[in-house]
Amino acid sequence: MNHDRNDTPKNRLTGAQVAEHNSKDSCWVIVHGRAYDVTEFLPEHPGGSKIILKYAGKDATEEFEPIHPPDTLDKYLDKSKHLGEVDMGTVQQEEKEIDPDEEARQERIKRMPILEQCYNLMDFEAVARSVMKKTAWAYYSSGADDEITMRENHNAFHKIWFRPRVLEDVEHVDTSTTMLGAKVSMPFYVTATALGKLGNPEGEVILTRGAKKHNVIQMIPTLASCSFDEICDAAEDGQVQWLQLYVNKDRAVTKRIVEHAEKRGCKGLFITVDAPQLGRREKDMRSKFDDVGSNVQSSSGDDVDRSQGAARAISSFIDPSLSWKDIPWFLEITKMPIILKGVQRVEDVIRAIEAGVHGVVLSNHGGRQLDFARSGIEVLAEVMPVLRERNWQDRIEIYIDGGVRRATDIIKALCLGAKGVGIGRPFLYAMSAYGLPGVDRAMQLLKDEMEMNMRLIGCSSVSDLNPTLIDTRGLGMHTAVVPRDTLGQNVYDPLIGPKEKAKL
Amino acid sequence: MNHDRNDTPKNRLTGAQVAEHNSKDSCWVIVHGRAYDVTEFLPEHPGGSKIILKYAGKDATEEFEPIHPPDTLDKYLDKSKHLGEVDMGTVQQEEKEIDPDEEARQERIKRMPILEQCYNLMDFEAVARSVMKKTAWAYYSSGADDEITMRENHNAFHKIWFRPRVLEDVEHVDTSTTMLGAKVSMPFYVTATALGKLGNPEGEVILTRGAKKHNVIQMIPTLASCSFDEICDAAEDGQVQWLQLYVNKDRAVTKRIVEHAEKRGCKGLFITVDAPQLGRREKDMRSKFDDVGSNVQSSSGDDVDRSQGAARAISSFIDPSLSWKDIPWFLEITKMPIILKGVQRVEDVIRAIEAGVHGVVLSNHGGRQLDFARSGIEVLAEVMPVLRERNWQDRIEIYIDGGVRRATDIIKALCLGAKGVGIGRPFLYAMSAYGLPGVDRAMQLLKDEMEMNMRLIGCSSVSDLNPTLIDTRGLGMHTAVVPRDTLGQNVYDPLIGPKEKAKL
Amino acid sequence: MNHDRNDTPKNRLTGAQVAEHNSKDSCWVIVHGRAYDVTEFLPEHPGGSKIILKYAGKDATEEFEPIHPPDTLDKYLDKSKHLGEVDMGTVQQEEKEIDPDEEARQERIKRMPILEQCYNLMDFEAVARSVMKKTAWAYYSSGADDEITMRENHNAFHKIWFRPRVLEDVEHVDTSTTMLGAKVSMPFYVTATALGKLGNPEGEVILTRGAKKHNVIQMIPTLASCSFDEICDAAEDGQVQWLQLYVNKDRAVTKRIVEHAEKRGCKGLFITVDAPQLGRREKDMRSKFDDVGSNVQSSSGDDVDRSQGAARAISSFIDPSLSWKDIPWFLEITKMPIILKGVQRVEDVIRAIEAGVHGVVLSNHGGRQLDFARSGIEVLAEVMPVLRERNWQDRIEIYIDGGVRRATDIIKALCLGAKGVGIGRPFLYAMSAYGLPGVDRAMQLLKDEMEMNMRLIGCSSVSDLNPTLIDTRGLGMHTAVVPRDTLGQNVYDPLIGPKEKAKL
Amino acid sequence: MNHDRNDTPKNRLTGAQVAEHNSKDSCWVIVHGRAYDVTEFLPEHPGGSKIILKYAGKDATEEFEPIHPPDTLDKYLDKSKHLGEVDMGTVQQEEKEIDPDEEARQERIKRMPILEQCYNLMDFEAVARSVMKKTAWAYYSSGADDEITMRENHNAFHKIWFRPRVLEDVEHVDTSTTMLGAKVSMPFYVTATALGKLGNPEGEVILTRGAKKHNVIQMIPTLASCSFDEICDAAEDGQVQWLQLYVNKDRAVTKRIVEHAEKRGCKGLFITVDAPQLGRREKDMRSKFDDVGSNVQSSSGDDVDRSQGAARAISSFIDPSLSWKDIPWFLEITKMPIILKGVQRVEDVIRAIEAGVHGVVLSNHGGRQLDFARSGIEVLAEVMPVLRERNWQDRIEIYIDGGVRRATDIIKALCLGAKGVGIGRPFLYAMSAYGLPGVDRAMQLLKDEMEMNMRLIGCSSVSDLNPTLIDTRGLGMHTAVVPRDTLGQNVYDPLIGPKEKAKL
Repeated sequence: MNHDRNDTPKNRLTGAQVAEHNSKDSCWVIVHGRAYDVTEFLPEHPGGSKIILKYAGKDATEEFEPIHPPDTLDKYLDKSKHLGEVDMGTVQQEEKEIDPDEEARQERIKRMPILEQCYNLMDFEAVARSVMKKTAWAYYSSGADDEITMRENHNAFHKIWFRPRVLEDVEHVDTSTTMLGAKVSMPFYVTATALGKLGNPEGEVILTRGAKKHNVIQMIPTLASCSFDEICDAAEDGQVQWLQLYVNKDRAVTKRIVEHAEKRGCKGLFITVDAPQLGRREKDMRSKFDDVGSNVQSSSGDDVDRSQGAARAISSFIDPSLSWKDIPWFLEITKMPIILKGVQRVEDVIRAIEAGVHGVVLSNHGGRQLDFARSGIEVLAEVMPVLRERNWQDRIEIYIDGGVRRATDIIKALCLGAKGVGIGRPFLYAMSAYGLPGVDRAMQLLKDEMEMNMRLIGCSSVSDLNPTLIDTRGLGMHTAVVPRDTLGQNVYDPLIGPKEKAKL
Repeated sequence: MNHDRNDTPKNRLTGAQVAEHNSKDSCWVIVHGRAYDVTEFLPEHPGGSKIILKYAGKDATEEFEPIHPPDTLDKYLDKSKHLGEVDMGTVQQEEKEIDPDEEARQERIKRMPILEQCYNLMDFEAVARSVMKKTAWAYYSSGADDEITMRENHNAFHKIWFRPRVLEDVEHVDTSTTMLGAKVSMPFYVTATALGKLGNPEGEVILTRGAKKHNVIQMIPTLASCSFDEICDAAEDGQVQWLQLYVNKDRAVTKRIVEHAEKRGCKGLFITVDAPQLGRREKDMRSKFDDVGSNVQSSSGDDVDRSQGAARAISSFIDPSLSWKDIPWFLEITKMPIILKGVQRVEDVIRAIEAGVHGVVLSNHGGRQLDFARSGIEVLAEVMPVLRERNWQDRIEIYIDGGVRRATDIIKALCLGAKGVGIGRPFLYAMSAYGLPGVDRAMQLLKDEMEMNMRLIGCSSVSDLNPTLIDTRGLGMHTAVVPRDTLGQNVYDPLIGPKEKAKL
Repeated sequence: MNHDRNDTPKNRLTGAQVAEHNSKDSCWVIVHGRAYDVTEFLPEHPGGSKIILKYAGKDATEEFEPIHPPDTLDKYLDKSKHLGEVDMGTVQQEEKEIDPDEEARQERIKRMPILEQCYNLMDFEAVARSVMKKTAWAYYSSGADDEITMRENHNAFHKIWFRPRVLEDVEHVDTSTTMLGAKVSMPFYVTATALGKLGNPEGEVILTRGAKKHNVIQMIPTLASCSFDEICDAAEDGQVQWLQLYVNKDRAVTKRIVEHAEKRGCKGLFITVDAPQLGRREKDMRSKFDDVGSNVQSSSGDDVDRSQGAARAISSFIDPSLSWKDIPWFLEITKMPIILKGVQRVEDVIRAIEAGVHGVVLSNHGGRQLDFARSGIEVLAEVMPVLRERNWQDRIEIYIDGGVRRATDIIKALCLGAKGVGIGRPFLYAMSAYGLPGVDRAMQLLKDEMEMNMRLIGCSSVSDLNPTLIDTRGLGMHTAVVPRDTLGQNVYDPLIGPKEKAKL
Repeated sequence: MNHDRNDTPKNRLTGAQVAEHNSKDSCWVIVHGRAYDVTEFLPEHPGGSKIILKYAGKDATEEFEPIHPPDTLDKYLDKSKHLGEVDMGTVQQEEKEIDPDEEARQERIKRMPILEQCYNLMDFEAVARSVMKKTAWAYYSSGADDEITMRENHNAFHKIWFRPRVLEDVEHVDTSTTMLGAKVSMPFYVTATALGKLGNPEGEVILTRGAKKHNVIQMIPTLASCSFDEICDAAEDGQVQWLQLYVNKDRAVTKRIVEHAEKRGCKGLFITVDAPQLGRREKDMRSKFDDVGSNVQSSSGDDVDRSQGAARAISSFIDPSLSWKDIPWFLEITKMPIILKGVQRVEDVIRAIEAGVHGVVLSNHGGRQLDFARSGIEVLAEVMPVLRERNWQDRIEIYIDGGVRRATDIIKALCLGAKGVGIGRPFLYAMSAYGLPGVDRAMQLLKDEMEMNMRLIGCSSVSDLNPTLIDTRGLGMHTAVVPRDTLGQNVYDPLIGPKEKAKL
């Protein structure tokens, strides 16, 4: 290819010009057809300089896009570093190395199961794991430390069993309920999850459309790939949305966000309280390392690797000093109901009620923050009896999230006393694997399960659900079994069934 | 082959004529040598239209047979659509595609273990799994959702241990007892299971003959492959049978069925109360999909797949509004003892007694309905102490079913206070693998185990069995262990035993 | 080979003569050089006729030897059927089929680990499993039903943990104690196990010699391969032996046995009370079937297979009517202390004390009788507090057996209150793999472990062991975990450690 | 090579001269260039004679070095047996056999992950396992008996879950605390572990440097590969070190050691009380056997193998008679605070307080001594409530060690009431894999986790940690599950997810 073409329009940079700035001494990158000088920004990049240097002198759009909100460069890079348009026709297309992992993934995409083969939420996760980019999968699927809380979240539901009623008229089953005053067709909402474009180029607006179709609420994440307004714009007529909020160190910024959300019609403000710092997620970090690690020439102490996964790259603004004393200020600046997201013990639920907020989400952030944090469903079982003893159970709406995969999980939470449950990853996986039809089917499957299982426990409406319908004796016991004696296990000769005849 | 033969008898259709109607616009199928126009019926077919369209213009007998009672077409398809006999000699024999799965299965059948190699009920299941058609296996073996209840049913017995008496004279062990007044030689009955012809072309009558041979009771299923009368006819002399009843939305139908059963001599009416709607069984659905899925050309939203497995295809008539207020009516229309099958908590047992019925079966429908329903044996342990406290233990006969595989399971149930236990799948598997000799041997093995184990706990008759003979401390705790730390597990270097010398 | 040799001595049968009687119509077999007509005995053979017919007309010595006591033929076959000596030179040596399993076993024997590589009792089991004949291994290693009790026996020890004392002077550790008045060097005895010649051609006398060397007691089994007198004769000077007794339906036989044992100097009479009938052990039965099954031509109902493993073949004389009312008679006929072996609940221990016997063994027969019988150690934890409450703990000696593999197991039992423990299979395995040196090393390893662990819990003598040294909170809970959700497990992407660099 | 060179200096032995003494009748070995006659010492060698005979007539330096303190030969071999210098140029270099295991290890070392890929302490263990010599790995990684306690140590932390506070100001997190009066930056110390040179040729001084860098305390082991003074010398300025002490049978020796340590500035004396005898560690023994076993010609009873692993070879001097009555003497001979290391029940903690010592370490010696000893964290949960009830919680400093791998483990211990935790193996593994940078990174990772997790439970300083922040309901239950029914498990057909399309 000839880089010295004379037909380059005035004022547009050529690929060759950009390509000269390919080191940490002078580092230019192209994003969406415009060049930027990020040399001085390198040491400040929350995701580390390595990942940028990988694209020094090159087009970084594909990498940049899903993990940065659209206005990132305007906000964080001084205008003097905005170098203007690039004649993209002159930018050398990098011959991508043949990546055997990526080739295998493309092959898997070709042979992807059709949507009708997904019969439950786990199935979407199985497909997503198979067809998503490894780094995107790692970001969505990872949890804190040993991911014990992340897995316990779903496991905990396995400790709760049903005590169904029989011979109740369940011809007509109504799964609708209300959340913060809004009527919804099912007792779940789409909870906030970050970086939707990692899974689908359209991002969170797909979830908006899915939520609309099934008349459930979407909680808009602070760390969305789409901008807040894009997500609001995607909502139709009276569709209800909530805002999830990471509180910024700069309260003026926070105030602007809250006021803007209220103006755009958000019906609830969910303040995240379980993430003064975003968690270490080693699966995510390792995946990131694999991506940039091949460039690593030395491992001297000075050149510490700062690529700690997507999570930590996007969260440095969060205020770790947020505390109970900030709550009155929030109650002042907005009329939206305020819900604390991430409460994890009964003492703090009581404190929340006393502080005058309207709800809590018992949550451990999907197991992504503190390992060995208890599951929301377990905390719920701790909370409700205490509230009922005080007759406080109606002073606040209580939600849980984490590990919900089956309608039975939802029903268990409602039997215990939750108003509803949040579901995050499953819809991300459905979206990543099949786009909107995936989200649609995932919600439909939940609805089918919901009706079926309400019927099977003898309840025709959400208000029928109550604690006598479940057996929670097993909940709350964190059982880890005695390690096995390997030698003993090895010498045991297990029973076998009847043997086939020998081949003739 | 020449389709234009002139020797076709008058009034008989030719294969070629039928073959022209091979689309959803005009769909004829042949069943048992007669043609039917099912074009208009397609959208109503409970099993979805796809499975019918697979046979449009063709002979569907083989697929139709095991999952439809003999009188289905007469009952559900208007006579005007009965097109009359087909000259089967003119029907083109479809060259079956070579299905490698089926070939492998035929090979396994050739090498099937001989019957004497089956030493316990599990062994029949192992053979059946190996030699049954995949779809038949999927229908029999599947359970609700994650099949956790289905497996828990047997596991729950593992939480009950014996406290045997020694030095009791057990030379003569008598395993006989009575059920609803009938003398039986062992404290189990053959419980109702649907679609027997999936496992064996003769269907449920094989179970009738096996039950006769061992003097145990058979419960006749509503959804049998054989007709009710065929099963009654197969019984000999004083052989006792019961009727399992799904209550029809049309009570007149139900009344006819009940009155007919009483007339034919049924000695008990078991009303199923745990299935207002038949469950989703994903293994069954997936197996069904695999069968018809290859035809699927598109997966647009309009063409929703309705093939949800055998279970849901056969149950649309069941009345989900059945409730306690219907019980008096049943008590009026029949003199047969009435037993509620599928009760799952002590409150409902008490209500059943108050309603005047004669028995309950504590059951979760073999784990096929509501996942996380507790096992019958666990519910039994909840029920009996409450009844004994009220001195109500003799006001009703209490049965359980689900997960029974060993005589020790039966003995545990009787020690707790059950009158008997129902066994379903194991006899289906024995029948599917080996026919009547299989059922015979399965019952004989249970009998042998029963005598042996009665002896070993120091009891010579069923009336000796009592709660002091068991230790139930572990029952009722639904233990799910803390997820393991994969990293920790991976780095542990397990102990090994002595190593062989190196080969010289 | 020429069968018509004329040099056959008078009165000796030739191989050819015997070989003519090779069917069920006339069936002769050779044992130890003598021919027997077993035609009429075939249907009575406790092990079934098939196994005999396998040797019809042939030399059966090798098969006969290990599982029949030396005097079997004299006792059970009428003298008229004893046909006299055979000229063994004329018996055609069967060309053994090359059995690939046997060849592999011979290869394993060549590469057997040397004795010094066995560091614990499990190691002997690993070697024995590898080098023993499959049928012999199956007989020794099998348990009742699903072998759950058999495995629980050892597992139960894993629920007991230590609360060691520190800073006690443990320079000199004394592991000796007394059992029924006899001084022994360690608190275990060699318990009775049947058919020692299956593991080693010399049989139980090897255990006698091992027990002598380490000054522990051997309990002589009723069903030994060696005769009772052979085992007594193998004992030296003051070596203490006990007799294990299956009570014969013919009490005169029993009386003769007991009186003879007392005369020969036995110091304890252990009456087995947990085996009114010997258990079904499916691993054993299946192994037996494999052995004779290849002859099976038909599987019709008439020709029921009676080969139910070695266990049931040897036990038909046992009296299932033995009961508490027989105890006074035993107390009359002997001065030996009487111990009931196989007691399994506290009520029966109390009854034993009231009946005036001198001890009980809390045992479930090595898990070979009743599956889901509790382990001896668990029953011990039930028994001792009740006895102590009555201050009866010294009125009887209490032993346990089952699952003991480590000195820590022994110490746990003694801390709870046992006088000693019986060990069976481990010594059989040591004997089967390495003969007397194996038994010697096994006992030495136990002794080393014993001293070490006594020291580590801060006890210098057996009398120091007491209940405060253990934590038994976990004992007695029969935990079976909730079945796992396969789908959920499958989609979880486990954490991995650092990856190796790619190969250059 | 020519051994008869004449240029050998006077008074120096030649390799040929040494090589003549290559049997048990006359056995010379070379260590660090000097020859020694060890013929008479052979039977006394704690590690057995075999391992020495392997080097008879040869240079044994490489084997000798890591497991013997530098002054061993001076101390234990009479000067008359010191034969003087060897001209090493004349010593035949043994052509090492190509060991395929060693070759594979060298290959693994080449492809070792870079340090930045280690994200947690488990990762170092994974790398160490891959790159360490097998015998060294076996020594470090092995535990007592079935290694159940060793594994339980970490597992026990899995039974403790968090009850985090939210909305606490955690902007500034301070992880510093004091231990025995010394200020440290994190609440852990490097506990004593033996034979550091097995992992790294520099040995324990690497840990000294790492501890300095992160301002934590190092406990110097009695059985270090480096000499005590070498380790003291490696410390800088005010760096705090403690002494771990195995008490010698000869108290004069002990006194010299203690006084010397105090003089060198040690700030704490940790007397090991859980090791009156060093444990049997079968993984270590087996690894050792493999190493010398190939020489074994016979396995007669006389030639008993004494190679019982590194552990027992180095500990014969330890006094098993050490008892509470010795404590006053220790309090007299030193002003250093005295801490009992290895206390395992509350009774002994009380006794320790009464005896006037300054601290205890609740420890089971890393699971290397008594199997089924409870974990330190479990004992801590037993101890603290009793002390608090007496208001004695401040009369002593309580530490735990064993199984600590995550900052959450440390935080759990501190919430329960520990002053700090000891960490051993993880730093050894980091050192063995990566030397000082490994230790540095391991500590840094712990520090990062510590800050993060303190923040996530809502605590900004160590003093904020308290028992309400954890849920310990699961702790103390030693759960071993009922053995599974293999037959039942085998016949279960697990659910599967959606299938890929067939390859075209």
